[in-house]
Amino acid sequence: MFTSLLENVVQTRPLVHCITNYVSANDCANLLLALGASPIMADAPSEVEEITSHAKALVLNMGTLSETKLTSMLLAGQKANQLGIPVILDPVGVGASHFRKQAAHQLLSTIHFSVIRGNASEIETLLTDKSISIGIDVASPKTVTPYTIQGILQLATALSHKTRSIIAVSGKTDLVTNGYMTYAVFNGHSDLTRITGTGCMLTSLIGAYCGANPSQLLEATVAAVGTVGISSEFAHQKCELLQGGTGTFRTLLLDAVSLITPIQLQGGLHYEIYT
Amino acid sequence: MFTSLLENVVQTRPLVHCITNYVSANDCANLLLALGASPIMADAPSEVEEITSHAKALVLNMGTLSETKLTSMLLAGQKANQLGIPVILDPVGVGASHFRKQAAHQLLSTIHFSVIRGNASEIETLLTDKSISIGIDVASPKTVTPYTIQGILQLATALSHKTRSIIAVSGKTDLVTNGYMTYAVFNGHSDLTRITGTGCMLTSLIGAYCGANPSQLLEATVAAVGTVGISSEFAHQKCELLQGGTGTFRTLLLDAVSLITPIQLQGGLHYEIYT
Amino acid sequence: MFTSLLENVVQTRPLVHCITNYVSANDCANLLLALGASPIMADAPSEVEEITSHAKALVLNMGTLSETKLTSMLLAGQKANQLGIPVILDPVGVGASHFRKQAAHQLLSTIHFSVIRGNASEIETLLTDKSISIGIDVASPKTVTPYTIQGILQLATALSHKTRSIIAVSGKTDLVTNGYMTYAVFNGHSDLTRITGTGCMLTSLIGAYCGANPSQLLEATVAAVGTVGISSEFAHQKCELLQGGTGTFRTLLLDAVSLITPIQLQGGLHYEIYT
Repeated sequence: MFTSLLENVVQTRPLVHCITNYVSANDCANLLLALGASPIMADAPSEVEEITSHAKALVLNMGTLSETKLTSMLLAGQKANQLGIPVILDPVGVGASHFRKQAAHQLLSTIHFSVIRGNASEIETLLTDKSISIGIDVASPKTVTPYTIQGILQLATALSHKTRSIIAVSGKTDLVTNGYMTYAVFNGHSDLTRITGTGCMLTSLIGAYCGANPSQLLEATVAAVGTVGISSEFAHQKCELLQGGTGTFRTLLLDAVSLITPIQLQGGLHYEIYT
Repeated sequence: MFTSLLENVVQTRPLVHCITNYVSANDCANLLLALGASPIMADAPSEVEEITSHAKALVLNMGTLSETKLTSMLLAGQKANQLGIPVILDPVGVGASHFRKQAAHQLLSTIHFSVIRGNASEIETLLTDKSISIGIDVASPKTVTPYTIQGILQLATALSHKTRSIIAVSGKTDLVTNGYMTYAVFNGHSDLTRITGTGCMLTSLIGAYCGANPSQLLEATVAAVGTVGISSEFAHQKCELLQGGTGTFRTLLLDAVSLITPIQLQGGLHYEIYT
Repeated sequence: MFTSLLENVVQTRPLVHCITNYVSANDCANLLLALGASPIMADAPSEVEEITSHAKALVLNMGTLSETKLTSMLLAGQKANQLGIPVILDPVGVGASHFRKQAAHQLLSTIHFSVIRGNASEIETLLTDKSISIGIDVASPKTVTPYTIQGILQLATALSHKTRSIIAVSGKTDLVTNGYMTYAVFNGHSDLTRITGTGCMLTSLIGAYCGANPSQLLEATVAAVGTVGISSEFAHQKCELLQGGTGTFRTLLLDAVSLITPIQLQGGLHYEIYT
């Protein structure tokens, strides 16, 4: 199954419109190209709707957010919803400021997201922060850090029900849930936390996979998570052989995404399904 | 001849002012330094005219365009024209939105560009799009994609006559024309299309070569095209030996530009002249 | 001594808030992570004060400056001063425009900086430019380029007295002075000047070291200068073995910062103290 999801990316080369931060924009563009997709980064309010209308997926990333970029996200997201194009949200550092919480509130109130990807803390903030307060007010599960896998699954499931989005939570084990069925993905090397923007890059690849596989969004998201996870394992192995540091790992991660084959993805993916 | 064009860059270290996108700004700065030029990226309307007045060339790149950046481009471009400094345009994705088309119209109506560099589709949009409509209204040649080399040459020649600019068209064969004399450059590896910003990087290097060789703009542009083309060939060869992917290729491309010698440029350049 | 300064970074993983340029933001984030610190890049006026209040250090970098970013710098800097968080200034290209000079005037009049890092020309501009004119009007030392080490030391000492900041001047020999005691650091390879943003990266690392060692700001700044210097020497050596160019050097510099140990820092640091 995962074989064909990657093949569809390579064959259709989906255009992925990213409204994203300037820290990892270059890495996201390069990773999208490496996978076989076509990136377009554009964030002026004057043009985002038109750009989105050409695209197969829209990725909204809250890093280095500004008022203007938020305006563009709202415009592009509504256009994508009208056109039925998958929209992916990366709520980067949403707990770090009231500005980001209010932005998240506006985004989640205005746009339906196909997928929301973050770490456990970002997902918890989206679910439980009073200033975000989206959807019906259900009793939220209580978690305490350090997060347990069960605690994270409860958070993700609750957020999925509230937003009707697929929720992908990055961590030692990655979880991808549509609120009813959950994939736990065990791939990935901790070196991913030692370079900037690997979360953003993953979110971009979710855009590529969803854009190329709009009728299989849950599995497409798992395929993106697996692609980054497996690629980080390849990169780590080669990096050790070369006695490299985080610079070499970064280069090799991009290499690995550009070289991964559908069969390697299918064979390397290590997951369980919870229902 | 090309030998001395590169020697002039290395000896004069021209300051190249880039008003550019945030996706490839780092790559452009590194490539300019690799060649021996000095980059300065600055895009605030409050300062761009002054920055331009210190520079030997001005590069305007329409990626991640904003209203403010457009204002800066218009200010800097007019200043550069007053001072006789070469101005280079990269109409990134000009066909993607009305905003970019209108921006192109304003830029081309206000500023004389020494060189315009794009792919065939961008060059065709500049020439034929009704909302851009620059210069005298001549009958435009009709092309249909896939572009033929003859079709691209017709487009480039017509745009050159309209804008009185040198037109550089990137593709499998690169064309550089002043409307009367055309260089077809056969260097370059397709790996260039698998990393982001290689077009932007080339446009930056055109700025460096033109800044250092203001009386030989046509050949300076060809030298830049050749530098990126030959460097991509070196990078591809070494990348294959190392069994690398697009991350390694990206690193090796920067390496190759930093290591290319005037003799390698002259000897490696593979071109024909059409008159 | 320097051993413990690096150990403190690794153990406390200080959050460093950077309001910085989009050219080197990715490199700065990656270098901070490589050292063991946590970067956050955020520059919207709506959120910078709150972000700074979570951080252990604030880095203000004047590259690709805009009016909005200047507003954010003023807000964040004042908040950091209130909270007693070290603030570091990188006056990138301050001599290049009146806009930057006026911005420097506003920043230096409003915010107390723990450390200011620049090259000799930037430090001289801060001290002597009439439109910046900060603090009491003392007779400034006169220097003529090419700068001598004695001339630079005079400039740095005078600026330190005026601003009550530690001044770090990058060059063939790096100087770090608190106005009374000066470290001359002899590490570093000239390859650092062939890639973009190495000054910005160093300033970011000063933020990390100062954030983790707020009671030893002078030595923390020296440790940052030494870390980049020693890492560049490692990177250069390995780059020569690999016959690499500036792309490989860039990757290896990040590698070296991610691999440097407290003992290597202490042992590799080559300095003299002037009092």
